[in-house]
Amino acid sequence: MTITASLVKELRERTGAGMMECKKALAETSGNLDQAIDVLRKHGMARASAKAGREARQGLIHAYIHPGDQLGVLIEVSCETDFVARTDDFRELVRNLAMQVAATNAQSVDRASVDPAMLERERAILMEQARGSGKPEAILEKIVAGKIDKVYEDIVLLEQPYIRDPDRKVKELVDQAIAKLGENIVVRRFTKFRVGEA
Amino acid sequence: MTITASLVKELRERTGAGMMECKKALAETSGNLDQAIDVLRKHGMARASAKAGREARQGLIHAYIHPGDQLGVLIEVSCETDFVARTDDFRELVRNLAMQVAATNAQSVDRASVDPAMLERERAILMEQARGSGKPEAILEKIVAGKIDKVYEDIVLLEQPYIRDPDRKVKELVDQAIAKLGENIVVRRFTKFRVGEA
Repeated sequence: MTITASLVKELRERTGAGMMECKKALAETSGNLDQAIDVLRKHGMARASAKAGREARQGLIHAYIHPGDQLGVLIEVSCETDFVARTDDFRELVRNLAMQVAATNAQSVDRASVDPAMLERERAILMEQARGSGKPEAILEKIVAGKIDKVYEDIVLLEQPYIRDPDRKVKELVDQAIAKLGENIVVRRFTKFRVGEA
Repeated sequence: MTITASLVKELRERTGAGMMECKKALAETSGNLDQAIDVLRKHGMARASAKAGREARQGLIHAYIHPGDQLGVLIEVSCETDFVARTDDFRELVRNLAMQVAATNAQSVDRASVDPAMLERERAILMEQARGSGKPEAILEKIVAGKIDKVYEDIVLLEQPYIRDPDRKVKELVDQAIAKLGENIVVRRFTKFRVGEA
């Protein structure tokens, strides 16, 4: 196991510990940074605030609170430079995305982040429903796959029809901003609170 | 297993299914409401939007975005009536709580909601640190318990010193509002986004 100089440097920056301590901690954890932080902390050689680090990226945090204060959305959208983050175009995109989340059943940014247990449960229900239709077993899978696509369109933000122009998907809205601003733009995360729903 | 009339009623309200179907579904799931909804959906007898229901309660959703738009907090605080939710006192409390979360390391509302894995990891680190002090084993547990209390004070919102009056705990701020407004007030949940931290 080779501990690279850049790994040692990162651990030093995160913990404030000395170079030799960092090297030793990394050797002990086979190069696992988070575990090395724990090792250093156990020996009192790292600040208690040492944490898995932040990826250096730019972007905005934005909130939309629906009139009446019963529903709110918090969203993070990232780009590559602070310059783009401060443009009106980027701000408008972020505002529109937050309103989209507030107005719809959006639960995940993309398919990959959909809760697999929820999806499995949904699939079981749809399969039972399809069976009840009396259609031949051979095409049930196809029917269910089509309905799962509809579920994605309902709950996956990037696949939803854009509320202000339902002919376009939200993903197209983001792609358009990417083309215009010339930077990669990523919807990182969002959360929605509704009074009484916790 | 007796299926009460009120349970049947609730299932009907949530699903829009007929009374006999609801009774049957509940019998099949031994009175489990969420499972009964799934049963009804499988038979196409419940709206797809049927979900574990909302507790009827009042309150507000509030957001605090720190100047610069790099940090934001979304919070839900509940009370018993819409009347109290709309008072200036309640609104001010909610605003102050959101700012408290933004300004501190708050991660959970109360001790019960602290992530047990995180706490266990913290405890192991503190125990190792204490061992390194050379103090007798008999008092190490006590030292660690004291340090864990400090961890709670750092990450549990209700146990934190209130930023605008550090002699009081946040819980006292809430209790004061309860006394003044004459309703139970509960901090339900909050979330904090910082750019690049996802």
